[in-house]
Amino acid sequence: MTAALPGTTAAPERLVYVPTAAELGYTFGGRAPVATLRPGQVVEVYTEDCFRGLVRAPADLPSQVCPLPYVNPVSGPFAIEGAEPGDTLAVHIVSIAPARDWAVSATFPHFGALTSSHGTPTLQPPLDERVWVYEIDAEAGTARYRATRSEHIVELPLAPMIGTIGVAPEGGQVIFSEIPGPHGGNLDVPQMAAGATLYVGVNAPGALFALGDGHLRQGDGEVCGVGIEAATTTTLVVDLIKGGAPAWPRLETDTQLMCIGGARPLEDAYRIAHADLTQWIHESTGLDLLDSYQLLSQAGTARIGNVCDAIYTVVARIEKRFLPAGATTRPGSVHDRLAATAQALRAG
Amino acid sequence: MTAALPGTTAAPERLVYVPTAAELGYTFGGRAPVATLRPGQVVEVYTEDCFRGLVRAPADLPSQVCPLPYVNPVSGPFAIEGAEPGDTLAVHIVSIAPARDWAVSATFPHFGALTSSHGTPTLQPPLDERVWVYEIDAEAGTARYRATRSEHIVELPLAPMIGTIGVAPEGGQVIFSEIPGPHGGNLDVPQMAAGATLYVGVNAPGALFALGDGHLRQGDGEVCGVGIEAATTTTLVVDLIKGGAPAWPRLETDTQLMCIGGARPLEDAYRIAHADLTQWIHESTGLDLLDSYQLLSQAGTARIGNVCDAIYTVVARIEKRFLPAGATTRPGSVHDRLAATAQALRAG
Amino acid sequence: MTAALPGTTAAPERLVYVPTAAELGYTFGGRAPVATLRPGQVVEVYTEDCFRGLVRAPADLPSQVCPLPYVNPVSGPFAIEGAEPGDTLAVHIVSIAPARDWAVSATFPHFGALTSSHGTPTLQPPLDERVWVYEIDAEAGTARYRATRSEHIVELPLAPMIGTIGVAPEGGQVIFSEIPGPHGGNLDVPQMAAGATLYVGVNAPGALFALGDGHLRQGDGEVCGVGIEAATTTTLVVDLIKGGAPAWPRLETDTQLMCIGGARPLEDAYRIAHADLTQWIHESTGLDLLDSYQLLSQAGTARIGNVCDAIYTVVARIEKRFLPAGATTRPGSVHDRLAATAQALRAG
Amino acid sequence: MTAALPGTTAAPERLVYVPTAAELGYTFGGRAPVATLRPGQVVEVYTEDCFRGLVRAPADLPSQVCPLPYVNPVSGPFAIEGAEPGDTLAVHIVSIAPARDWAVSATFPHFGALTSSHGTPTLQPPLDERVWVYEIDAEAGTARYRATRSEHIVELPLAPMIGTIGVAPEGGQVIFSEIPGPHGGNLDVPQMAAGATLYVGVNAPGALFALGDGHLRQGDGEVCGVGIEAATTTTLVVDLIKGGAPAWPRLETDTQLMCIGGARPLEDAYRIAHADLTQWIHESTGLDLLDSYQLLSQAGTARIGNVCDAIYTVVARIEKRFLPAGATTRPGSVHDRLAATAQALRAG
Repeated sequence: MTAALPGTTAAPERLVYVPTAAELGYTFGGRAPVATLRPGQVVEVYTEDCFRGLVRAPADLPSQVCPLPYVNPVSGPFAIEGAEPGDTLAVHIVSIAPARDWAVSATFPHFGALTSSHGTPTLQPPLDERVWVYEIDAEAGTARYRATRSEHIVELPLAPMIGTIGVAPEGGQVIFSEIPGPHGGNLDVPQMAAGATLYVGVNAPGALFALGDGHLRQGDGEVCGVGIEAATTTTLVVDLIKGGAPAWPRLETDTQLMCIGGARPLEDAYRIAHADLTQWIHESTGLDLLDSYQLLSQAGTARIGNVCDAIYTVVARIEKRFLPAGATTRPGSVHDRLAATAQALRAG
Repeated sequence: MTAALPGTTAAPERLVYVPTAAELGYTFGGRAPVATLRPGQVVEVYTEDCFRGLVRAPADLPSQVCPLPYVNPVSGPFAIEGAEPGDTLAVHIVSIAPARDWAVSATFPHFGALTSSHGTPTLQPPLDERVWVYEIDAEAGTARYRATRSEHIVELPLAPMIGTIGVAPEGGQVIFSEIPGPHGGNLDVPQMAAGATLYVGVNAPGALFALGDGHLRQGDGEVCGVGIEAATTTTLVVDLIKGGAPAWPRLETDTQLMCIGGARPLEDAYRIAHADLTQWIHESTGLDLLDSYQLLSQAGTARIGNVCDAIYTVVARIEKRFLPAGATTRPGSVHDRLAATAQALRAG
Repeated sequence: MTAALPGTTAAPERLVYVPTAAELGYTFGGRAPVATLRPGQVVEVYTEDCFRGLVRAPADLPSQVCPLPYVNPVSGPFAIEGAEPGDTLAVHIVSIAPARDWAVSATFPHFGALTSSHGTPTLQPPLDERVWVYEIDAEAGTARYRATRSEHIVELPLAPMIGTIGVAPEGGQVIFSEIPGPHGGNLDVPQMAAGATLYVGVNAPGALFALGDGHLRQGDGEVCGVGIEAATTTTLVVDLIKGGAPAWPRLETDTQLMCIGGARPLEDAYRIAHADLTQWIHESTGLDLLDSYQLLSQAGTARIGNVCDAIYTVVARIEKRFLPAGATTRPGSVHDRLAATAQALRAG
Repeated sequence: MTAALPGTTAAPERLVYVPTAAELGYTFGGRAPVATLRPGQVVEVYTEDCFRGLVRAPADLPSQVCPLPYVNPVSGPFAIEGAEPGDTLAVHIVSIAPARDWAVSATFPHFGALTSSHGTPTLQPPLDERVWVYEIDAEAGTARYRATRSEHIVELPLAPMIGTIGVAPEGGQVIFSEIPGPHGGNLDVPQMAAGATLYVGVNAPGALFALGDGHLRQGDGEVCGVGIEAATTTTLVVDLIKGGAPAWPRLETDTQLMCIGGARPLEDAYRIAHADLTQWIHESTGLDLLDSYQLLSQAGTARIGNVCDAIYTVVARIEKRFLPAGATTRPGSVHDRLAATAQALRAG
């Protein structure tokens, strides 16, 4: 059935989806699915960069060639068979590969953490708008940083991640893809990388899952507001857990449990992530609530996602090895199964 | 001269200082030095835990046995010969060793990130006050977590750090040791660990350096408000750089430069740390300001210190290997010399 | 044409609109207009209370009888003839009359400024959920407060306002009516009262204006999260200004200019409102930008709208009499004309 | 005894204190009293302006003629006979009269709400530093605003207030006078005006009360960071209440109770003020806690003090007439007695 959709190629095991420019979306919610996926299915998705591929050289100033709000295009949405509000969509990231041999970053007027912005305005003029073009060597696993007003070149290790990923929001809302929220969206957390399984609550029939905004690397907090922005070919395995929708997206890897919190001010993002991880530990292992709080207080490793978007994000993390022995975290076996599929794909 | 002070033992190479209970301080500023150190001198300091050693068992509720504001005692202050306002005090942490075979943590009424507090009050009653006692195995390098209302025991790796460290604040101010600020104080950042050199601006003749509040481990943000609190024997090498006082404390290791920012809301701590690190890169390497901003945006790794104290802290970090080749970060050779001294001490 | 719509009654001068329960909306955006208004037209709208009229007695706990997100229903949307994106919709509030002789307030679990909440979570249980029923004496202009666990009754003066008012948001977004934003929405500012003209930017053809959530009175910040919630009959005059869309809603009365800013943390709401009012003074009077900033610094009177919703609001205000003599604030004559219409309606 | 102190003149009923430049203080705490006052005594104090009187003309740029931290000088401290930690100092403001026929305001580099600052840094250069000189007509009760780059002159009504007022802080701390806190300090709230009684907790023997930083007027939030700064002659009556120290300063007038909260972010200042006022109503009238919360939610009128200092301030207020009839707010009779004294002084 998905074979009949424009831009999709069904394979027995793997749906390949390459959107046309017209198919790119700028919202979560409000759009019809481009394909339907079965739980357990593998999908390979082309994602365009946050500037729609239009910023390619120093003269391509983003505010001119890619004005707001038509940034951060997403590929999708994909309907998931059987997904109903209250369910949990599980998406395992198998791989994120650069789709081009270049990527870009930029300063954007009144956007970023070290400038006044629309959310924190001042009467000062903006910083200069400037573009940095990175040469990508996928083989070597590096992005070449080249200073624009100084002589400095350095290779930065690639650490590919998906900036924007999520489902249709609650209650029929339609929200720009550049905005993070409980439905996911522009979370901009570096932990959204190969090997991680995302759990996100389903709000609409079919979940309507979409993604985009790959970063080949991003510093914690994405301080200038823009990562190393790239088109990607991203391979995923999707699955569905009936019920159990978390309030905010969660992540699981072979070794860690993580909760993402999004809010302003940043301490509230920290609170949301850590309250959720405390509850997750408590509920999935039976460890007393304050004992869970204490364990997280000593063993937690938090990361800052973004300090530039409409909603800032923090990731609360804990190593599974510190949790009660024998306890299964609630959706644990789902991650294990998806990770095994990913392993088989990489081996095959 | 320091030999004559009570509680101190001068050695040719190393001053050993063990404070009496009466010598413990609860402020930065407002106290006479307990000893004077020469630049280059090694000092071994006993630090008491944040509860003055009075919380030793589940029944020792901190709010009763150790009421505010007499928490977070510091050892010192030490005067540094020749230190003048505007100078930079460099303190290299050689080692932080547990002084006892136990340590404690607790919930404290209306303190911590996941409770209403005096800074973020609500009308709700406080969470239960509870104590966790950790058995410390210094040999194995572990702290034994033991749940209080569940059956769970797990060994957490030791990662000793100094929570409270700094100098007399600006302009004759006297500030509680439990409060962080540009002078240091209760920064509660896990990166204040062996191998790091702290740079802090001098505000008063002699700098009047003090430290305390060792944690054998702390999760990022110290979410319940209390780390694994322990008495320590901490060995330091001090040095003095004329001029160059940073606005907020900075850290250097063999591989990283770090800037600490402290503020509420947390995004302002993030901004202070990242603006300072951008400027540090720019000024010490000559890399153009926006090029420095871009490099930090992609290569920076931020950590959250505390989200519970009067002022929250964030650490902005960058790997030295990403900075312009051949450039010396301004106080670099100071760190190298101090690290070499530390190396000799460990070898010897 | 509007006469044919269910629930509407066209009159030469005044459209009366009383929605059925099924017509009530819970979003801005995503809904077809219930009627079309001409610029200059008067409309009398029935608005239901924020709990859909379902909370009428102490036993009607809001979280049970009116669960999220189906709160804050709005009447409308109304299409405005000729309104195009980039235009400014002007809505003058002629009167807000209580539609019933009772109104309610409540505490709602984990909602409000003095409790932990979904945005600022803690591990504490919620405050008690409780309902206060107010007797309304429209003649006397009072709401009777009656304590629930003490003996205290006091008459509070009515100060009716519209809590939720706005247009379809930018770019086809659909946003819950309980959320404030640049499009208006649940601003919860007491200055949205009879005599004020609201200016809000148009994002969609026809503007798609809606309103609801009347409060017969609200303390600044709406500290418990709920005002004196009431159904109202609200009379408005609408008008259209081509172009000139402000970034956030603005208000004008006979004596004041006001800008509304919405954000978290609250200082950012303050900044948005004051930066916008500084610019409005500067642009509409020609007064130098820093001179405008200085004048506002001494003459501004700010009010806090809400400190409980997803986005907090602040109102920046200045008396027109302090502005340059002879200068016309940009949309000034619009307010004057609408206020004259309102005056005629009250006289007639 | 106070007669012998330099700069003081004892009278039976009124102590007149005019500090020399050398006597001006820049901290709360850490300074010996300049005079001792008996409870009930009247004191007339000369206060210098925040720039030490050094900014008198457009060319006197504050950052050059009055560098930090030696701003915001205070007159005092005054010891209060019998004041002990835990007591409540009551200070009634009888009058605040301009001491000169001019006053000043300014923009200060990286200070204020609509610029990046040391607390909220960005990489942008500062706004222009500029001085506004106001002509004061005490008779007419006006301050003449004169634009610097435009032609605009307007008379603003005088609304004199004391920006900085308080006592020695807790535990022997010494804190810059430009910083607000539970001890008072640079609160910058316009409600600190004639007719108000301030209640502040005593932390040190004698309380050590000081004041300065008069503003002849200030917009809410003091948006540019500087009010209409003036030297004043301020007349006060002091009194002492044994015990009952509030956590943060409170105010009482003939008609209102007010609580001041200070924090960043601004919502936490709002929370502190409103939690304290809820508790004050609850404790002084016996009204149930949630009933108090509800009443404040509908009847409270909050004001923003400053959004520029190290700690932002909010004032929560309620009209006494809405509180339970017959109930006496705890320190009510103190205000009444002090207000009667003030009345007698004005009449006499």
